[in-house]
Amino acid sequence: MFPANTAEVAAVVRACAERRVPIVPRGAGTGYTGGAVPSRGGVVMSLERMNRILEIDEANLIAVVEPHVVTGDLQDAVEKVGLFYPPDPASLRQSVIGGNVAECAGGPRAFKYGTTKQYVLGLEAVLPTGEIVETGGKVVKNVVGYDLTHLLVGSEGTLAIITKIILRLIPKPPMHATIRATFQRVEDAVNGVTEIIRERVVPAAVELVDGQSLEAVARNLQVRSLAPEGTAAILLVEVDGVPAAVADEAARVERALGAAGATEILRARDEAERQELWRVRRELSLSLKMIAKLKFNHDVVVPKGRIPQLFDLVAKIAADYRLRIPCFGHAGDGNIHVNIMVDPDNADEVSRAHEAERVLFEGVVALEGSISGEHGIGFAKARFLPLELSEEEIALMKRVKAAFDPHGILNPGKIFPTKP
Amino acid sequence: MFPANTAEVAAVVRACAERRVPIVPRGAGTGYTGGAVPSRGGVVMSLERMNRILEIDEANLIAVVEPHVVTGDLQDAVEKVGLFYPPDPASLRQSVIGGNVAECAGGPRAFKYGTTKQYVLGLEAVLPTGEIVETGGKVVKNVVGYDLTHLLVGSEGTLAIITKIILRLIPKPPMHATIRATFQRVEDAVNGVTEIIRERVVPAAVELVDGQSLEAVARNLQVRSLAPEGTAAILLVEVDGVPAAVADEAARVERALGAAGATEILRARDEAERQELWRVRRELSLSLKMIAKLKFNHDVVVPKGRIPQLFDLVAKIAADYRLRIPCFGHAGDGNIHVNIMVDPDNADEVSRAHEAERVLFEGVVALEGSISGEHGIGFAKARFLPLELSEEEIALMKRVKAAFDPHGILNPGKIFPTKP
Repeated sequence: MFPANTAEVAAVVRACAERRVPIVPRGAGTGYTGGAVPSRGGVVMSLERMNRILEIDEANLIAVVEPHVVTGDLQDAVEKVGLFYPPDPASLRQSVIGGNVAECAGGPRAFKYGTTKQYVLGLEAVLPTGEIVETGGKVVKNVVGYDLTHLLVGSEGTLAIITKIILRLIPKPPMHATIRATFQRVEDAVNGVTEIIRERVVPAAVELVDGQSLEAVARNLQVRSLAPEGTAAILLVEVDGVPAAVADEAARVERALGAAGATEILRARDEAERQELWRVRRELSLSLKMIAKLKFNHDVVVPKGRIPQLFDLVAKIAADYRLRIPCFGHAGDGNIHVNIMVDPDNADEVSRAHEAERVLFEGVVALEGSISGEHGIGFAKARFLPLELSEEEIALMKRVKAAFDPHGILNPGKIFPTKP
Repeated sequence: MFPANTAEVAAVVRACAERRVPIVPRGAGTGYTGGAVPSRGGVVMSLERMNRILEIDEANLIAVVEPHVVTGDLQDAVEKVGLFYPPDPASLRQSVIGGNVAECAGGPRAFKYGTTKQYVLGLEAVLPTGEIVETGGKVVKNVVGYDLTHLLVGSEGTLAIITKIILRLIPKPPMHATIRATFQRVEDAVNGVTEIIRERVVPAAVELVDGQSLEAVARNLQVRSLAPEGTAAILLVEVDGVPAAVADEAARVERALGAAGATEILRARDEAERQELWRVRRELSLSLKMIAKLKFNHDVVVPKGRIPQLFDLVAKIAADYRLRIPCFGHAGDGNIHVNIMVDPDNADEVSRAHEAERVLFEGVVALEGSISGEHGIGFAKARFLPLELSEEEIALMKRVKAAFDPHGILNPGKIFPTKP
């Protein structure tokens, strides 16, 4: 199904509701946990024809968009008029705003700017019963009734089909400075983040790349210098704002990184150097594919002071289950992508990897963390939900689901574990 | 009831649930819409014994608090270690965090920093069925299951009783600059806000006070110069951040205000002058009480570009219904406090005021605004809910309410209109 507007979405939903046929809303299909996959069959509703930017209101710092606008295209459009839509998932050139809202997409800039939810002011959506509702609106403050807007953000297409999105924009920061620091120990890199916070600087991004991940990029790009001998981790730090503030904050970041024991600190002098520093981060996903055909890419998150314990846990799991597990991610948020590398033809390795992921998730929950900071649950992680949520919490969420979808036809089989 | 801990809250709730007795959770009781008033009788549960700051975690920028911590006390405690909890409702020296979360409190700093919801990472709460649940957690990113945290924020104590709150903190801005601009026309003042946004500055606060309100303060304090002849409105603008950025932004704000036609622009040279500039704003509520015994204080909100239309609407209503309606508020957010002044002994005036508030709300909704930006619905505004929300939207919210509270015992009679 390719509806062209909200009325068509509602008509299809009503037809499905009458016949109790499942519907699975689909954006660009870039999600990691299978949210847009029709695992129980039914009608797949692609929103790809609803792809217009309806309004960019400079005076009120608002954009109104249809769900299938590519996130990067929206960013380009608002930056042209000096505004900024901060959320920057790695998929931003492929994924669409509707999917970003359904999954509550994050990205490196979440440390300073927050995730998608911080920018959604209002939604138009079609309920699984076919009614069209509007939540929130064009105002930043609205406390009339329950905040259904933020209940829908991150609900993975299980509560309603989003047909229009009102987004908050902010002024585009006029300048940024990018710094790369190299560390001999992961603890030192994490301590670098703590020192930055102690300097009371909130960088736009604080990305950490571990030695194994760096090694993969160096080998893939055949640039040995990207992973100098003995590097346990690098931090990529970007500060932004008005020029005077950026200069001041960059100096304080460098001081903090030095205090934490960085063995090398580089600051980009121009845009070309900035792109060069970010290159490692951008090439990560592709480079990891070179070392194994399959990766279980888990976006776990822990309170950021506990990142060293997370790395200890990962090292132990890697040893216990004889697996390669390169890690990188958003150190400022404690949101680390843990990549369990697997040869899908090696049944024993696949089985060890599955055991490893359960041990990882249990350990993350024990560290007061969460099994997903960005990717959601979908069907890929549904069986792990009880590790993090109590029976009562899951039962409550199911009652909320039923309040929206009494017949259980919208994106069934997602989020909640099913009995075996 | 004065429970001392979560277990006691749960025990009382279970006892009430078995007997189908209403429970009304109560914070400091400073709300404007009666959320903490037991309008249907039952047990009032004051959380006043649960008043401890449990943890201020500097490394992770997190505070964990019980619900009855006075908001201003929390701010003082975190500012002592260089951190910042931005939400600043006018009641911050009286109201408590639990109530702020239940109502999603705002305040002047919401323009730059957002309202309470932007700072709540996780909650512990007791459901109306007596179960204890935890939502969210100590991590900024968490997309596991539905975002019940933000559903509870602003739910006015109708979905669960909040017993613990995990708050996000940010570094305290080291400096601020405060500017007062005087305008001969309200449109010019609003245009000043637009010009500030055009300069791509996001002030911490942009407060507007209209001529009538100024006049009330001038008379109350007997300081004639506070309301110079012909003043239609003043703007109070505060920018904050690192010193270099503040200097730059303050200069741009002054340029913007000049471009909009300000007849006088003052910048505080020290803290004493800053307090003097803010004095008008702080004395407003008390001063208005001098001109009439009762005020219907409505916190309506419109897209900020439409504030002039809101003022036109208020002027027309004041003339049509022969009422005094001073206005002031958070111009940056479009959130204006419209104060319909009433002599409660004048039955005719009270009746005109009630008609006036309905016309005001209808007009605000027509301007794509909302009937409440800060105070919530409680029982005072419940009958107006259908002006802003459709029948389907209200029905959906009622189903969500039933998912939490199947017996309807938690804070009944709030938010939703009852049949006459």
